[in-house]
Amino acid sequence: MQTYEGPDFSKTELIPVIAQDAATGDVLMLAYMNETAFLETLETGRVCYYSRSRKKLWRKGEESGNVQELKSIYYDCDADALLVKINQIGGAACHEGFRSCFFRQINPGTRQTSIVGERVFDPKTVYKTPK
Amino acid sequence: MQTYEGPDFSKTELIPVIAQDAATGDVLMLAYMNETAFLETLETGRVCYYSRSRKKLWRKGEESGNVQELKSIYYDCDADALLVKINQIGGAACHEGFRSCFFRQINPGTRQTSIVGERVFDPKTVYKTPK
Repeated sequence: MQTYEGPDFSKTELIPVIAQDAATGDVLMLAYMNETAFLETLETGRVCYYSRSRKKLWRKGEESGNVQELKSIYYDCDADALLVKINQIGGAACHEGFRSCFFRQINPGTRQTSIVGERVFDPKTVYKTPK
Repeated sequence: MQTYEGPDFSKTELIPVIAQDAATGDVLMLAYMNETAFLETLETGRVCYYSRSRKKLWRKGEESGNVQELKSIYYDCDADALLVKINQIGGAACHEGFRSCFFRQINPGTRQTSIVGERVFDPKTVYKTPK
């Protein structure tokens, strides 16, 4: 069995990261880290992602104040995915104001979707620039 | 606000999927679906992924018997990530025999890793071919 020492950024520059609420177990969001974001997260104890759309480090909450305090961090068997257990300041991880980004459920039978998540804030009151 | 009807496979052929134990809330694994895998999952109620290494549909558990029964399915605000809550038959999602693929924790201070997951089976007794 291969011995891993952490996520393997030599296989892929960006590694998907699952953010899970450390207290409730709710899955809050999925985002990406490059190696710089990963190391900054370890050093600061605040979760830093890499924004694929903005092509730069994304210190989650730097605008909204809803930072993510790192509680624990794990990597998977293939060393190409990360799991962070966090304390989400402000209670909402999603830029649309929901606690979790996964606030829409799909009905497998009808394929219809419905909003099941809890909205914590109104994005218009939090962000200066439209998302 | 944009109205979504489900994950958007026109943006990217493969969408990352978080599998979470429906009963315990544990995050078990991260894998990918293409549209065919997504639709098959909805139709059969068993989770089907797309294997990036084997470049074909991956009906999770078809060799080991450890299938994943779909309990509910969600997609995120950007329509480019999925969350499935599942019942993991056999108790282990990881091909290395652990309950979760995220069985290794990273210590942010020392950057050392340690195995924290629970091993449910010995892979040598389950798989005919080495993984």
